[in-house]
Amino acid sequence: MIKSDLEIAHASKMRPISEIASKLGIAHDDLRPYGKYVAKLPLKLIDQEKLKGKKLILVTAITPTKSGEGKTTVSIGLSEGLNILGVKTAVVLREPSLGPVFGMKGGAAGGGYSQVLPMESINLHFTGDFAAVEKAHNLLSALLDNHIHSQKNTLNIDPRKIIWKRVMDMNERALRDIVIGLGGSAQGIPRESGFDITAASEVMAALCLSNDLMDLKEKLGNIIIGYTYQDEPVRAHQLKAQGAMAALMKHTIMPNLVQTIEGNPAIIHGGPFANIAQGSNSIIATKMGLSLADFVVTEAGFASDLGGEKFLDLKCQYGNLKPDVAVIVATIRALKSHAGMPYEELKNPNSQAVKDGLPNLDKHIENMKHFMLTPVVAINKFATDSEEEINAVLAHCDKMGVKVALSEGWEKGGNGCLDLAQTVKEAAESGMSNFTPLYHFDWSIEQKIETVARKIYGAAEVEYSVKAKQQIKLFNKIGLDKLPICIAKTQYSLSDDPQLINKPTGFTIKIREFDIAAGAGFIIPIAGTIMRMPGLPSKPAAENIDIDAEGNITGLF
Amino acid sequence: MIKSDLEIAHASKMRPISEIASKLGIAHDDLRPYGKYVAKLPLKLIDQEKLKGKKLILVTAITPTKSGEGKTTVSIGLSEGLNILGVKTAVVLREPSLGPVFGMKGGAAGGGYSQVLPMESINLHFTGDFAAVEKAHNLLSALLDNHIHSQKNTLNIDPRKIIWKRVMDMNERALRDIVIGLGGSAQGIPRESGFDITAASEVMAALCLSNDLMDLKEKLGNIIIGYTYQDEPVRAHQLKAQGAMAALMKHTIMPNLVQTIEGNPAIIHGGPFANIAQGSNSIIATKMGLSLADFVVTEAGFASDLGGEKFLDLKCQYGNLKPDVAVIVATIRALKSHAGMPYEELKNPNSQAVKDGLPNLDKHIENMKHFMLTPVVAINKFATDSEEEINAVLAHCDKMGVKVALSEGWEKGGNGCLDLAQTVKEAAESGMSNFTPLYHFDWSIEQKIETVARKIYGAAEVEYSVKAKQQIKLFNKIGLDKLPICIAKTQYSLSDDPQLINKPTGFTIKIREFDIAAGAGFIIPIAGTIMRMPGLPSKPAAENIDIDAEGNITGLF
Repeated sequence: MIKSDLEIAHASKMRPISEIASKLGIAHDDLRPYGKYVAKLPLKLIDQEKLKGKKLILVTAITPTKSGEGKTTVSIGLSEGLNILGVKTAVVLREPSLGPVFGMKGGAAGGGYSQVLPMESINLHFTGDFAAVEKAHNLLSALLDNHIHSQKNTLNIDPRKIIWKRVMDMNERALRDIVIGLGGSAQGIPRESGFDITAASEVMAALCLSNDLMDLKEKLGNIIIGYTYQDEPVRAHQLKAQGAMAALMKHTIMPNLVQTIEGNPAIIHGGPFANIAQGSNSIIATKMGLSLADFVVTEAGFASDLGGEKFLDLKCQYGNLKPDVAVIVATIRALKSHAGMPYEELKNPNSQAVKDGLPNLDKHIENMKHFMLTPVVAINKFATDSEEEINAVLAHCDKMGVKVALSEGWEKGGNGCLDLAQTVKEAAESGMSNFTPLYHFDWSIEQKIETVARKIYGAAEVEYSVKAKQQIKLFNKIGLDKLPICIAKTQYSLSDDPQLINKPTGFTIKIREFDIAAGAGFIIPIAGTIMRMPGLPSKPAAENIDIDAEGNITGLF
Repeated sequence: MIKSDLEIAHASKMRPISEIASKLGIAHDDLRPYGKYVAKLPLKLIDQEKLKGKKLILVTAITPTKSGEGKTTVSIGLSEGLNILGVKTAVVLREPSLGPVFGMKGGAAGGGYSQVLPMESINLHFTGDFAAVEKAHNLLSALLDNHIHSQKNTLNIDPRKIIWKRVMDMNERALRDIVIGLGGSAQGIPRESGFDITAASEVMAALCLSNDLMDLKEKLGNIIIGYTYQDEPVRAHQLKAQGAMAALMKHTIMPNLVQTIEGNPAIIHGGPFANIAQGSNSIIATKMGLSLADFVVTEAGFASDLGGEKFLDLKCQYGNLKPDVAVIVATIRALKSHAGMPYEELKNPNSQAVKDGLPNLDKHIENMKHFMLTPVVAINKFATDSEEEINAVLAHCDKMGVKVALSEGWEKGGNGCLDLAQTVKEAAESGMSNFTPLYHFDWSIEQKIETVARKIYGAAEVEYSVKAKQQIKLFNKIGLDKLPICIAKTQYSLSDDPQLINKPTGFTIKIREFDIAAGAGFIIPIAGTIMRMPGLPSKPAAENIDIDAEGNITGLF
């Protein structure tokens, strides 16, 4: 009988958070506790001097199936393994969004024997960071509509050109496109608007790209909420919003310390998605991990073309970070799916399908080499994987001269990741990586997009809609062209078409339009039909979640 | 130079929350800390046996001006005074909503030298209770629209008869009336809807009227979200929502312990408004206070006709609570406003205006006597009050045989409330009150409304709109008529017309329509034009709020 993640989590004996903190040399008095097992960490623990010589391990993945391929699980297991090997390691992760928790995917705190604890708290509210981001975002929205209504629109904002929506941390299809301000002159100006999911909020992006509270406040003030009738950008500081927004995030800017099942430190902070935002935890959390531990294992959402590329081009350039190794998580299931096997049949052994799916893995290996990073392939082992299937991948990597190891963290915790940990440790200490971003911020918008599209996605060309072309002109005019790019596209393909599995070639990336995050500091080319607000599935996970009189939660996975 | 509330708060030396807890006999291990100065308290600390013989002091008020008359400040000062007298006292309050914090009124953590600390945390997010209520509410909304869209509306819900909206803890005029589900068949069914403020959520009401987690879950499951095409009510449990909603509130159900400026215990929990909801903190928090202290001082929002009546009829009947004294907060300013003085001139001395405003005070005294409660008038002293003005009120109360005392807690803390504390102590210990609710739940809807309207508001009659009459028929049919009532009306008049100041007579209460809170357990007759979602003023308080590099917040008051 296989235990559920929640049962395994409950069976684990947690240690007081001050014990975990002391492993990182943090004094009890520096902790801001949230219950017995969670604490926020003050920013003073970041020490630029201590970053030197530390090792940063990026965990990325091949193109995933809809279940995800277990990057978080592998990251946790790898950090347990490194700790067993005597390497002082912290795993640094994102905070889960309630959208997937109540929707389809479930929680985001790892799985099996590679989890972070307390998993229910982490998955439900945690320390309120998402709620604060949401509130800060929506305060700006309220001040904006109130400006037009009560302050007689002295900023001359064109209500048709407002780009700042509202956010909610929920899969809320019905709020994607709405009309607000109905009901007559006491209720404001009727206009079209909508909600995005909180993980896609520019406030979340700004939080994750800030170096400190004043940096965050400045970024918040620089947010562009829309344009005047004369097409001049209007920024949040013109609505005097940034002070109150930053005040709401006083504690949110502090990373959260929790523990892995084996009692090692995990730092969890920020939660942008990787298909529609930059998709990795905060610069602050990563730097704090590097200040306090010798190795930091961190993940970036979805595959190397999404979270991976954005981590390396956007976050590493903004945060002046230099990763040492890129772990590429592959699963037998996902490889078979790239050979065209239907989702329901992926548990059936089929070595030929595994082999047929390997070009996808090869492309993600190639992608990491574009950044001059040493790749290590981690095969995240599932109970349904056959030996023959696994051997096919091992043999392929050996032939290619790429380091590879099994990751059995889900089943065995850190002891299931010792090979992987040893391989990663050697690769990191070899000094063979020489991290180089793919583009420089001062390239033109088109140059940046085409570089990512051709080198990372494998596209033949990039096509811009009429609207996108007009927007590029506007960005050039108002000086937004020197910002890095954060392409929004499907996670199910290297292209912008979810149907093009494996390693597509000869395709065109179609830039439909741009969103901007001028405060957080990037522009968002939107490729294909990706949406910034998911919907619930026909059987929402929420229907199975329950709690008993003693406060035990069930149905969370 | 008068110090701001925030300056006074910052100048106060806070004690570790475990020290405050130990005054109530709570072991350190029972605390769930949120930082160093806030902790949640486990429900096991409620002990039905220990409630016997404890004294419950309700703090209500006369009809307020738009600044509020300082019930929270008086409640805190009174509890400090009682503690100085050696009476083990806890003050039990509501949590502030962000709507007023960013809008006009500012924070809700007391004022001057009668505050609860840490005031910024309490006013901004606190322990995330509002966020959890909001999320639980909106999860039900998302499941509802998803049911119609993805589950093909097997419950046969009539989209035109959905009464469950969404909530946001923000003054958001533009979200009052909206159209959702636009954008084609992938985005659901277009329909009219809107947002209420979170304080008005039925989830908040249910939290505050629950006795434990299972009671809360049952109440959440009983929420009516709308009707079928055949006019049958549809409840949250039919959408399988209540388990996940209750799981979101696992920690929310635990009351929050903080401290007063003088280091006495304050329990803060739940935050329904009193004009549009029941307006007092949770039954759980009140019972916990009574279990742990000898005296509990608690406030109910706005005047005796709103929070006061609802506290006594609704909360006390549901919670089996018996208050011992009713403190009626009066201010010289508000009395003058009831004589018709304009708001801007209220700081100018005018004894005649004070005398002319006294009928309003008399009505609130009478109201408490309707409940067989001993009233104590507390004059919340402002620096602008003249001695002659104060003497006019003292003399009037003496003539009426009503106990009265000055409350100088704003200026002097507990030492400014010793007379008041002594007076309240004697009144509580005299056993003269014999609390009796005004109506029984099993009376007819009209009987309940008319009893409150005539006895408490002083109305001559009650008039029902055609819609209201149809709703009463429906409620009788579907068995909701035995629920207590929670009338929504303006706080600025004893009537439903904000223009009718002082002690109006001969007026008609016009019931426009009903909302229902079938899960929380009441129906809401809506009188006049009251709205469940406020708007921001033309100069929102948010514009002045700021934070510096050290995390010091300014502009919060």
